[in-house]
Amino acid sequence: MKSTNRVPHIDRRVLLSSLAMLPLLSAALRSTPAAAQAQGDPLPSWNEGATKASIVNFVARVTAQGGPDFVPVDQRIATFDNDGTLWVEQPMYVQLAFALDRVKVMAPMHPEWKTKQPFAAVLDGDMKALAASGEKGLVEILAVTHAGMTTAEFEKIATDWLATTRDHRFKRPYTELVYQPMLELLAYLRANGFRTFIASGGGIEFMRPWTERIYGIPPDQVIGSSIKTRFEFKDGAPTLFRLPEINFIDDKAGKPIGINEHIGRRPIAAFGNSDGDFEMLQWATIGASGPRLGLIVHHTDAVREYAYGPDSHFGKLSQSTLDAAALNKWTVVNMKDDWKKIFAFD
Amino acid sequence: MKSTNRVPHIDRRVLLSSLAMLPLLSAALRSTPAAAQAQGDPLPSWNEGATKASIVNFVARVTAQGGPDFVPVDQRIATFDNDGTLWVEQPMYVQLAFALDRVKVMAPMHPEWKTKQPFAAVLDGDMKALAASGEKGLVEILAVTHAGMTTAEFEKIATDWLATTRDHRFKRPYTELVYQPMLELLAYLRANGFRTFIASGGGIEFMRPWTERIYGIPPDQVIGSSIKTRFEFKDGAPTLFRLPEINFIDDKAGKPIGINEHIGRRPIAAFGNSDGDFEMLQWATIGASGPRLGLIVHHTDAVREYAYGPDSHFGKLSQSTLDAAALNKWTVVNMKDDWKKIFAFD
Repeated sequence: MKSTNRVPHIDRRVLLSSLAMLPLLSAALRSTPAAAQAQGDPLPSWNEGATKASIVNFVARVTAQGGPDFVPVDQRIATFDNDGTLWVEQPMYVQLAFALDRVKVMAPMHPEWKTKQPFAAVLDGDMKALAASGEKGLVEILAVTHAGMTTAEFEKIATDWLATTRDHRFKRPYTELVYQPMLELLAYLRANGFRTFIASGGGIEFMRPWTERIYGIPPDQVIGSSIKTRFEFKDGAPTLFRLPEINFIDDKAGKPIGINEHIGRRPIAAFGNSDGDFEMLQWATIGASGPRLGLIVHHTDAVREYAYGPDSHFGKLSQSTLDAAALNKWTVVNMKDDWKKIFAFD
Repeated sequence: MKSTNRVPHIDRRVLLSSLAMLPLLSAALRSTPAAAQAQGDPLPSWNEGATKASIVNFVARVTAQGGPDFVPVDQRIATFDNDGTLWVEQPMYVQLAFALDRVKVMAPMHPEWKTKQPFAAVLDGDMKALAASGEKGLVEILAVTHAGMTTAEFEKIATDWLATTRDHRFKRPYTELVYQPMLELLAYLRANGFRTFIASGGGIEFMRPWTERIYGIPPDQVIGSSIKTRFEFKDGAPTLFRLPEINFIDDKAGKPIGINEHIGRRPIAAFGNSDGDFEMLQWATIGASGPRLGLIVHHTDAVREYAYGPDSHFGKLSQSTLDAAALNKWTVVNMKDDWKKIFAFD
């Protein structure tokens, strides 16, 4: 697999279809949210300006006891997309990299894959042929890499992979490729009585094993796509067996649905970076009383991270979503200008 | 509808199929968990004996810092069934009473219901004819009473109903028919670092509007059965529209699945009262290291509440589940002997 190849035309909905995964860890240390919080400025990696001010002003308003915009603690719910909002999603979703690596690891047990698509494409690192296999191909890859084991087994597989795999460009575990300004934002919100949830198109069981350690978000505050499981009592113990069947796609209009199912309250703040987050931002900010904060991370820094948007081949942030942001007064982060630091190791 | 008629042969799975509901409130006050907690004995409504001791000993073991059975706070997860475990489920599930009442309220707009089953049976209070309509009849009732409106509209309907409806026997709102010993247990566990979740076969949106006020359990810690919703942007605002289609049945083998989907960790304690809780108790207590607590509430007090079990017509607690309790060392509450008080108003 050539890491610099991008995967064109692989629809996110399809990609997510079978992704439902558990755990992972890595061993790296970084400056923790708590450490950032201890400083005078709770958002030290954010440059001063309208973007940072919109966040700080929102938090000040909803926490001002007796003020007109005060929001009780139990209603301070914030939801965050994950891929591209909290951690890197280029040159491909981390979970897709995981799936492709798993195909390679499993290949010796499947000699027929050498000549069978989409597996041959993966083994040859031929991203164009992989893309040509379309939805059907991706679902096949996800079925063999994400289903057919218990939830505990999947958690171990994913955890081990994340602990040992390095991103090709940054030469670091993926769990270090999280945005320092967003870690500070998560901690800042929690310090102000918010509960912070992830609402990601990615697999719920792929995220949960590491979100508490990396983001301070416990497993029960992670919402994501999932596959179906079957309860089995086997060899004297109960297990959940992962089936190659989609349960839920937590993307686009699925995000408000997943948020309602998991949280049961509308968020008052939502954070995303793509068209997949559009409905979540609507659900959090429109047609409800009181102050609301919608925020979109626009990736504009090809030097320190990546630049992609409406004018990009890989773009999943369309102009219409940016137009909606202007209309609805959502904050748009210009990564290059608004973030002093992108990663903790910068 | 004669309140003393029981509803025979209405399968729980079917009953739950379309139930997915939001909110409700009532106006009554009762001694709060916090008040009970302030006393020396955190479980004052529990008589001394083996049952109470099994609970107190379990909590002492998992919270003993440095002890062999110590469990970190983030893993102190407890799950509770609702109907028959936290509140009354006789002479019929509260949510079924709600559905039948809704049919009556809606009947003037549906003159054809007078002669059309299963609606005619509901309007005539003919529980036998209703039961004869089987799964199909119940699904029809649930479709018209639980779907076809937004989540916000359903929340208001259910909330208003719960605020104004009284149980026929106790002449009180259903939200007062909650078990005082279980309120104390919830508060006791939380005071010892547990997070307490509901895992009910009942509709998630029927419970959420009142569980925080009544049980101290916020909406995001409520797991239940649900119907599908559709996101719609309409008249300038986003809504979730409730569809007459099952999303998830949180009963029997569905409970571990729902718990995994919502919490992402196995509970170390689980509380139920029927065969529908069997798999949840297995999931919490078997094949995992460390101390575990499984508990079954056996309804044995026809004078103060109801008596039903393996020998009862209405029994949903079979002998095989009681046998499994003995085998797995689950605690069985004998309501008559173990509970000093059943309701706060006793």
